[in-house]
This record gives sequence, C-alpha cells and structure tokens, in this order.
Amino acid sequence: MATKPNVAFIGLGAMGMGMALHLLEDGFRVSGFDVSPKALEMLASKGGFAASSPQESARDASYIICMVANAEQIKNVLFAESRGAVFGLPHDAIVIICSTVAPAFPQEVLRLFKEDFQRPDIRVVDCPVSGGTVRAAQGTLTILSSGSSATLKDTKPILESMSECLYEIKGGLGAANKVKLINQQLAGIHIAISAEAMGLAATLGLNTKHLYESVLGTSAHSWMFENRVPHMLADDWTPYSALGIFVKDMGIVTSEGLNRKFPLFLASTAEQLYLLGAQMEYEREDDSGVVRVFLPKSPSLVSDSKSTQMDVSQFAGAYKLIHQLLEIVHTAAAIEAVALGINLGLQASELISIISNAAGVSESFKVVAPKAVLGDFTSGCTIAQTRDTLVSLLYM
Amino acid sequence: MATKPNVAFIGLGAMGMGMALHLLEDGFRVSGFDVSPKALEMLASKGGFAASSPQESARDASYIICMVANAEQIKNVLFAESRGAVFGLPHDAIVIICSTVAPAFPQEVLRLFKEDFQRPDIRVVDCPVSGGTVRAAQGTLTILSSGSSATLKDTKPILESMSECLYEIKGGLGAANKVKLINQQLAGIHIAISAEAMGLAATLGLNTKHLYESVLGTSAHSWMFENRVPHMLADDWTPYSALGIFVKDMGIVTSEGLNRKFPLFLASTAEQLYLLGAQMEYEREDDSGVVRVFLPKSPSLVSDSKSTQMDVSQFAGAYKLIHQLLEIVHTAAAIEAVALGINLGLQASELISIISNAAGVSESFKVVAPKAVLGDFTSGCTIAQTRDTLVSLLYM
Repeated sequence: MATKPNVAFIGLGAMGMGMALHLLEDGFRVSGFDVSPKALEMLASKGGFAASSPQESARDASYIICMVANAEQIKNVLFAESRGAVFGLPHDAIVIICSTVAPAFPQEVLRLFKEDFQRPDIRVVDCPVSGGTVRAAQGTLTILSSGSSATLKDTKPILESMSECLYEIKGGLGAANKVKLINQQLAGIHIAISAEAMGLAATLGLNTKHLYESVLGTSAHSWMFENRVPHMLADDWTPYSALGIFVKDMGIVTSEGLNRKFPLFLASTAEQLYLLGAQMEYEREDDSGVVRVFLPKSPSLVSDSKSTQMDVSQFAGAYKLIHQLLEIVHTAAAIEAVALGINLGLQASELISIISNAAGVSESFKVVAPKAVLGDFTSGCTIAQTRDTLVSLLYM
Repeated sequence: MATKPNVAFIGLGAMGMGMALHLLEDGFRVSGFDVSPKALEMLASKGGFAASSPQESARDASYIICMVANAEQIKNVLFAESRGAVFGLPHDAIVIICSTVAPAFPQEVLRLFKEDFQRPDIRVVDCPVSGGTVRAAQGTLTILSSGSSATLKDTKPILESMSECLYEIKGGLGAANKVKLINQQLAGIHIAISAEAMGLAATLGLNTKHLYESVLGTSAHSWMFENRVPHMLADDWTPYSALGIFVKDMGIVTSEGLNRKFPLFLASTAEQLYLLGAQMEYEREDDSGVVRVFLPKSPSLVSDSKSTQMDVSQFAGAYKLIHQLLEIVHTAAAIEAVALGINLGLQASELISIISNAAGVSESFKVVAPKAVLGDFTSGCTIAQTRDTLVSLLYM
C-alpha cells in the first residue's frame, strides 16, 4: 500500500479541526498550524504534528489546506515574512483554499506565488466547503472545487477523503467560490427574513413554536428557516455558525455586486441587518441571534409565555401573512441570486441544481429559479398583490 | 518677489484642468500629467509644462497634487514601476491628495512612501475638494484639509490659492476625507430620493416643473434637489457630475460601514440604486439621470406634456405626500449621517457646521442633526405617522 501524502493544515477551528482529524484517521500525515496552542495540542494528541508556523507545517507537504477565517488570514498564512508557508512548501505543492473568499482571490493567490514570490511551480485550487462541524469530522462535507483540470485531478484524493459530495465547477480557478457566493447570498437573506418573521410573530404574541412548525413542509419553507429558528426558539446563541461569518460573506456578495455594477437590494439590506447585529455585539454568537434586532425590548421568542395559550385558529390571518412574507422574500431572493449567478458567468442549470441541495435552498427557489432562467414570470402573485400583502404586514 | 514653488499636477479632467490653470494664473509653475494628450496640449498652451509621465512631472516639484478618479489611480500615479512620481519627487515634497478616497487611504499612501519605497522624507495631506468646474477654474473651491499641523502649514499657500473656503479638519491625516464621506453619504441619498420623488410625480402625471418649484424654500428642500432636478426636468444628462462618481463614493461609504460594523440602511439602498443606474448604462452621464430608473417606460419628466395642463390645486394631496417623502428620507439620512460621523470620531458640531454649508445639506438636516447629537428626538412626526405617509405613497 502506498503511503498517503503529507498534508499541511492551517486553521484548526471547529470545522478545520474536524477535517484535519478526519484526514489523520484516513491515513494522511497531517502537520497542522493554528494560533491557538490548545488546538495544536489536540491535533498532536491525535497523532498529528503541531507545527510552530505555517512555514514549518508546509515542509514536506504535498498539499496545504487553508481553513482560516478570511482572505487576509490566508495571505498571512501563505506569505507572511519568514513565517509564511511559501518559504516551506516543496516543489509542485498544491494550495487548497477551503475558506469562503471573494471569487477573484484564488487567482490573486496564484499571481502572488508566481510573480511576487517566484514560485510558478505552486498550484492553487479553491474548494469552499459546507456541512458544519459534525460532517467535517465524518469526512462527509459538501465541497465545491475549481481550478485547472490537471490540478483538480491531483487534488481529488484528498477532497474525496473529506467529502461525501464533491462538485467540480467549470469556469476555472475561483468558479467554486462564485457558486458558494450565490449560496451564501441566499442563505444570508433567508436567515434575515426568518429572524424578521419570527420577531414579528413574537411581537404580535403568536405562538412562535407553532408558527415554526406550521411553516415546515409548505411553500414558505427555507432550509435556513428550518435550521436556524429552533435556536431562536430556545434562546440558544451557541455559535454553531457565528454571525460574524455572515458579516464577512454578505460583504463578499455586495462587494462583488459593486465590482460588477450589479444591484443587489436584498443582499445589501440583509448585510445591513447583520451589521446592526454586530453593532449590538452579537457577532461572536450564533447568526440566528440576529432575531434580537427585531425584539429590542424582550429579546426572546420563548419568554413570551402568554403566547403559548393563544388559540391558533383565532390567528389564522396572521399566520398566513407571515407565511406570505417568507414566500415573497424567498421569491425575490431567488431571482436576485439567479440573476447574479448568470452575471458571474455560472451555468444556470448547474447552479440551480447545486443550490437546490444546499443551505441556500427554499421552496420558492425550487419553483422560481428555473422559471426565472427561462424568463417565465407567470407564476404566483402579481406585484400589486405582493404590495398589498406587505402593507398588511405593516399594520398587523 | 519670491518665485512661487513648482507644482506637479496629475489628473487634468474637468475639475483638475480648472485647478491647474488657476494655479498657473496665480503664478505657480505647473508641470502636469494626464493620460489624455488633448488635456496636456491645453495645459501647455496656457503656459504649463506637459510631462510624459508622473515621474517627469514630479521632478523639481515641491508639491504634487493628485486629482485623479480614485485610489487605484493615485497608487498608479505615485508608485507605478519606473513611471511613478515617487521616482521623480525631490526631497521633502508634499503629496496633496485632492480626490475623494476612503479615509484610511492617505495613511496607506504615507506608509507606502516610508516603508515600501524608503522615502520617509515625503509628506502627505488629504484635501478633498468640492464646488464644481466653474469654481475650480476661479480658485474658489471649498477644500477640506487634514494632516500633520506642520505639513498643513507648509501646504496652506497652495490650498489658499485654489479655495475660497479652506477647512482644517482635526484628527490627523484622513480626517478631511471622513467629513467628505459624510457629505457624500448625504448628497448621494438626497439625489436618490430626489429622483424617486420626481419619478413618482411624473408617473402620477403631476406637473413636475411646478412640483420642483413648490419644494424650493420649504422643509422638503435639499441642496441636491434644487441643483439636480433641473437636469431631470430638461432631460439634460451632460455629466456635470457623472453617476459613476456616486457609484464610487457610496462604495466608500458602505465599505466604511462594513469595516466599522456600522449599519447604513439608507446609504446602502442609495448605492444599490446607483448600481442599477450603472447597469442601465447611465454611469458616464449626469448622476441626475438615475431618475430614469423610476421611469422605465417614458424616461423623461418633461416629455410628459399632459401633466402641464393639470390643475395644481386638484393634486394638493399628492404634492403634500411627495414633500413628506422628501422630508422623511432627509430626516432619516441626517440621523444616519451624524451617527456615522460620530462613530468616525468627528467632532459633531464642526461636522454639522461644515455640512450645513455644503452639498449634503437639507432643511431636515439643519433641524434634526443638532437635535440628534443631543439625543433629542421630540420634533416632527411619530414613527406611526411616518409609516402611514409611506403607505399612502405606495397607493398614490
């Protein structure tokens, strides 16, 4: 049996640690680095090598995986004076960017290796991941990958080890982050409108738990609504996924809109909402905690005990309006996202198929996105009906 | 009489040319550079020196003025390989950044001189200007300046030559661009709401010229409304100030919000509107042309001849609602802008005093901004009344 290659792993946070430990279990030799000594101890205790710098971790590595928070950290990991991985990486090593970054960033990394650091031998792929910490540890993540075909082929064994579902996105280096960007655009809008809908429901004194259940399985459903509202209902702000991630990711979305002169009214409004949450110091807590923006006086969906006694049938109209609010925003988000995806040069049917199985999906997306691509705008409500619904919501 | 110093002037566009020619008239020796040969010819014909690169223009210059479109161009002008001004600037020269840039950028320029180019002798001031092409040519601009006191003192003669009104903003290098940012935030929102209000009026068949006049001198007034709506009324998209400038400047505003985790709902909505205008290919035309976003079918306020026959008194309610729309948005903009200004560390009373005499002013700003600083929110409408007004506008 051939020995599996050496992997340098930078960024041993909740996701990164699970991925690194899984690679160890799968027979790769992993040399890790993180700014947290505790994380390094954990890696060492499981048989990995705890490096003292990205440079040291990169020695003898055929691959280096970057799973740090953002592009600035990646630049630092790879190129920091004397400590950067570039000063340790063997000839022909492959850099695997797993963090979610702006689509132009992986090309910029490649350029820096080639031009500024005279390392044209280094190859780069961008492989944004999703699935959360449990699937990271199981090696069952969803991974989007892009880069040159040859490099992707050489990277496949390690990507397959970490993933259950591995997509190869056409369009060259950066294309995978274009798809991830569209997913984050939708996911970020969906969390925001879930928070708004649940905040409104609590303010009205509705039974929020029952409202939550009433949405599941209907046309008002989104993956994010189903996943995040339970945290809201439990006042559980454990950072399963921190609000700061969406501050960053919606920033990537709106910056891309700005660069491309492409208007994104919904994404930018959701971004402002996350910024408001960050300003209220919720940034390091779970992103579902943004619901407290809508509940400044009693920031909880559970504490409102009077609501649990309400007769559901009495409030059927309110339930219906909140369902409609979700559906309206999901529909608009689907159109905004598909339009941006096409503007980014993505292949629409592939994009829709990936999103339909990802965290950015909603029932409205499944219905509207394929129609929007065809220019078919016949389904659903008219704009006048939608306006009436939104005005009714204002006066609830 | 002492000879006036040599000035390198980079960026001979509509504003820059006027400034450079005025400096020539005032006795400075001006060595200019621009990518347009025509602009260089014009400068030479008036007694200036037409340089073949920023480097050449910088030779023997005590000052170099950057009046190019954006930060990227400034970096290129100053630091481009072999052609950049840094390779020509004499010892102790002062870089005067007149372009509107992100507040952190002037410090970044100073750092590049010091660290990357080993020129710690070079000094930098940031001096965003306003007033338009006519005042540029007359030397009667408004200039905001910031930097170290010593450098500002050494720069004063040249700034005084170009300006009628010269402010020295406390807070060190970059502070002047913080004030300019707040002015642009307000100005950008005011143009956007002027366009929305006039687009709505045209759609309703109101007499748009009469509506315009009815706003002047009232509490619905803004400097931008008075200045830009005449272009809309005349379908005159001559780029007195191109829409692309606000795509850039609102980008600076919202990026600053993102960097500081400070929500800016109005600024970001206005930004999306400018992006929509850019997408519709209005970017190189006057910013007032953004009104066409609201008039997709008959993109003109004047061509709507039927409206001129309308009886004004018959539409008193509609007039009133549109006045209220302007006032509501101006009020919210004033609060958003003052809040951001304070977050940026600006001194509120100085900021309010400058804006009150600048293009970012509105009647609402004059009333609300000083109250907002004091936490006095007693004036004007309640939120419920405001909501009712906005809903009425939806159903006009």
